[in-house]
Amino acid sequence: MIDIQPKNGKLTLEERMAKVKKSFQIYALIDRKKRGGRLTTEEIKWIIDEYTHGRLPDYQMSALLMAIYFQDMDVEETAALTDAMLDSGAKLKFKGKNVIDKHSTGGVGDKASFILAPIAAAAGVKVPMIAGRGLGHTGGTIDKVEAIKGFKTALNLKAFEKRLKKDGLVLIGQTPEIAPADRLIYALRDVTATIDSVPIITASIMSKKLAEGANGMVFDIKVGSGAFMRTQKDARALAKSLVNTAKRFKKGAVAVLTDMDQPLGNEVGHSNEIIESIETLKGKGPKDLTELSLILAAHMIHIAGLAKSFDKAMDKARSVLEDGSALKEFRKLLKAQGGDARVVDDYSLLPMAKVKTQIKAPQDGHLKSFDNKMIGLLLIELGGGRREKTDKIDHAVGFTFHKKIGDKLKKGEPIMTITHHTSQEKKVKEIEKVFLKEVLKISSKKVSKQKLILEKI
Amino acid sequence: MIDIQPKNGKLTLEERMAKVKKSFQIYALIDRKKRGGRLTTEEIKWIIDEYTHGRLPDYQMSALLMAIYFQDMDVEETAALTDAMLDSGAKLKFKGKNVIDKHSTGGVGDKASFILAPIAAAAGVKVPMIAGRGLGHTGGTIDKVEAIKGFKTALNLKAFEKRLKKDGLVLIGQTPEIAPADRLIYALRDVTATIDSVPIITASIMSKKLAEGANGMVFDIKVGSGAFMRTQKDARALAKSLVNTAKRFKKGAVAVLTDMDQPLGNEVGHSNEIIESIETLKGKGPKDLTELSLILAAHMIHIAGLAKSFDKAMDKARSVLEDGSALKEFRKLLKAQGGDARVVDDYSLLPMAKVKTQIKAPQDGHLKSFDNKMIGLLLIELGGGRREKTDKIDHAVGFTFHKKIGDKLKKGEPIMTITHHTSQEKKVKEIEKVFLKEVLKISSKKVSKQKLILEKI
Repeated sequence: MIDIQPKNGKLTLEERMAKVKKSFQIYALIDRKKRGGRLTTEEIKWIIDEYTHGRLPDYQMSALLMAIYFQDMDVEETAALTDAMLDSGAKLKFKGKNVIDKHSTGGVGDKASFILAPIAAAAGVKVPMIAGRGLGHTGGTIDKVEAIKGFKTALNLKAFEKRLKKDGLVLIGQTPEIAPADRLIYALRDVTATIDSVPIITASIMSKKLAEGANGMVFDIKVGSGAFMRTQKDARALAKSLVNTAKRFKKGAVAVLTDMDQPLGNEVGHSNEIIESIETLKGKGPKDLTELSLILAAHMIHIAGLAKSFDKAMDKARSVLEDGSALKEFRKLLKAQGGDARVVDDYSLLPMAKVKTQIKAPQDGHLKSFDNKMIGLLLIELGGGRREKTDKIDHAVGFTFHKKIGDKLKKGEPIMTITHHTSQEKKVKEIEKVFLKEVLKISSKKVSKQKLILEKI
Repeated sequence: MIDIQPKNGKLTLEERMAKVKKSFQIYALIDRKKRGGRLTTEEIKWIIDEYTHGRLPDYQMSALLMAIYFQDMDVEETAALTDAMLDSGAKLKFKGKNVIDKHSTGGVGDKASFILAPIAAAAGVKVPMIAGRGLGHTGGTIDKVEAIKGFKTALNLKAFEKRLKKDGLVLIGQTPEIAPADRLIYALRDVTATIDSVPIITASIMSKKLAEGANGMVFDIKVGSGAFMRTQKDARALAKSLVNTAKRFKKGAVAVLTDMDQPLGNEVGHSNEIIESIETLKGKGPKDLTELSLILAAHMIHIAGLAKSFDKAMDKARSVLEDGSALKEFRKLLKAQGGDARVVDDYSLLPMAKVKTQIKAPQDGHLKSFDNKMIGLLLIELGGGRREKTDKIDHAVGFTFHKKIGDKLKKGEPIMTITHHTSQEKKVKEIEKVFLKEVLKISSKKVSKQKLILEKI
């Protein structure tokens, strides 16, 4: 309450009152945001700097984050927050506008990075990927690529920069050098229910993309039961915020809202998804995964200025996928980062559990819906994800889906195959029970197929 | 995010999922309140218990408090919060419905407790006052009574109980035995801009009133530039919440919304206010202070069942004030708690600074308004309040107002007299400058008088 009481004895009372009134006291800033006011660029920089250096207690930061969740931030505030987080760490810079990254908000079975990045690279885009690990019910690109023996994701920023310039495609995990403020704030958001604030998500994503030196970016915003954004409205708000913020930093950007009501492709699980990615790079992938990868890669090619229109970029993407040059880029990536490139031709080099158990349709009908988040959680139950941050992931287990929403089902037909270890029979029975009871919904009426691309921004 | 991942290996997957889903995880509770959901009585009890015992970190509590600020709580949640805070400490119980307390939300020059409590006591009400110290720009009853040499406010609960039963009027400061949860949460609210949440203020006030054993209560909700509630709408919301919560606990309650756009009475400052209170008890007080004290005391008498109607209670209050029995109660209170009762007849026994400096009207006109909060802050500047929690208060300084809003002013006429020490000449000059520039507004047109009682609930 005591927010305008001067403390410094050297100034006149009037001067002090004026000073204190406009001072950067965190109480006043939380209070202003709480009442729907704006924070200035200077104030935001001050807050992030103080917090990153441990001079602002967690309990004030979490109160402010919650106030931001409710009162939002405008484009300028979001850009200032992005900038402040960016400034907290190292920044790379690349010449030329063809350094383009892609960001997905995450989902179940989302392995598109492994396909679109080689496609874009084959078309001349430089792709500086700093990817994440599994979060909640969603899988992580870094966890998945670690199914490939020897692949190193812990390059430092110098090596990352060198590799990008040389090879045009590099994939590493989060590094402590980039946006440390974001890492600290993320940890706090994760325990205070303040994850889902559009401006904060935007700053978190954008600060990292800008730090890695991307000159343009394509956002894949997932929508549906397996996504963090459950509704198209929420996803659209995030998409707009990301694209607007990118523009403020003079970066080309496109956001695509895509379906996450069911797994992307047919495979869920680490080795499973690596195999499906390679199959897709070989031109034998499922339609949805192939199509989405091509579209996202085409946007990257277009933003990079390597095609005059999106349609021409799409042609280019298709051609480098079909002629095998995308697959070649993938092989090159594996070799360059120490991975066993023989997996491309020999999937048995990937860890794979021995037993396969099918879950069959309990009745005739039409596949109406999945609880897609639950699919991610069931994979965690099987060992293919982390319950605690320190858990080790079992790359060898996974799910293979044989049906998509809208498909006709005949009683006894396999819907999903679980790949698991011999010791897991009991757990698999439990998973089957939950799957049939809580995940799968069957309708007696015809069900329309899911649209893959919902909207572009 | 990982909010429904089971951790306990002994149950079946299904059981665990069910258990985890309804579990008391704080993340889920913050998230639910954030989304506008209700917290159950059990959940609120759990949160308060965990926090009071140090098992819930401050940063989660502050996020929850901010979510409550935005999403509010219904009567049942507020009652549960009150109950949980009440349960965290000691509780007194008195027989009979005549144990009635009064609570003011605080303001500038509010010394009504010193008048209404003796009036009520003289009419047969038992008044268990646990009062506070100055908060922000507002003065505190305990700080004020300490201007009287020897007066002990640090009685323990046992002594408090004994004194109430014997004398019917007792005044002590906050004790650590009562509602420790409230004290902890208050400290957190104070630094996270989450003070002004109606359900939390309600629970904070009510838990203490219930703990001290009051069987009914009268709330004086201040409205205006010197109050914490600036608008009648906000004050009404708090008043309703307090009265509704009191009813849930089967206590008689009335809330009165009163003006705080200018100081109550004419005196601001500790000795100044004690003298004005005694003058009022002698029947020579200013009209607004006398009237408000009578009205609040009458409500206490009425709720206590000592008068059949409010009007009859008002007659009773007036008569015990006029016949001197209220003043007698005040003398008795001073003696019972070790205070120098001679002050009643000899004000020179109170600490009083030597110099008096008048601030005069700079022009003809009508007194349009005060920035009443600033008056409180200027008193702090003069030493009559705390900048830091550890500051000592100077009881000897103060302001005497000669004009009220709506009064006609003649250039050169005194508006306010500052009582200060010789050493404070420079500071007084600064105060005069700020007072004329920022506190006082003069209009050339006629200004209507302020209404004292705005609303009753």
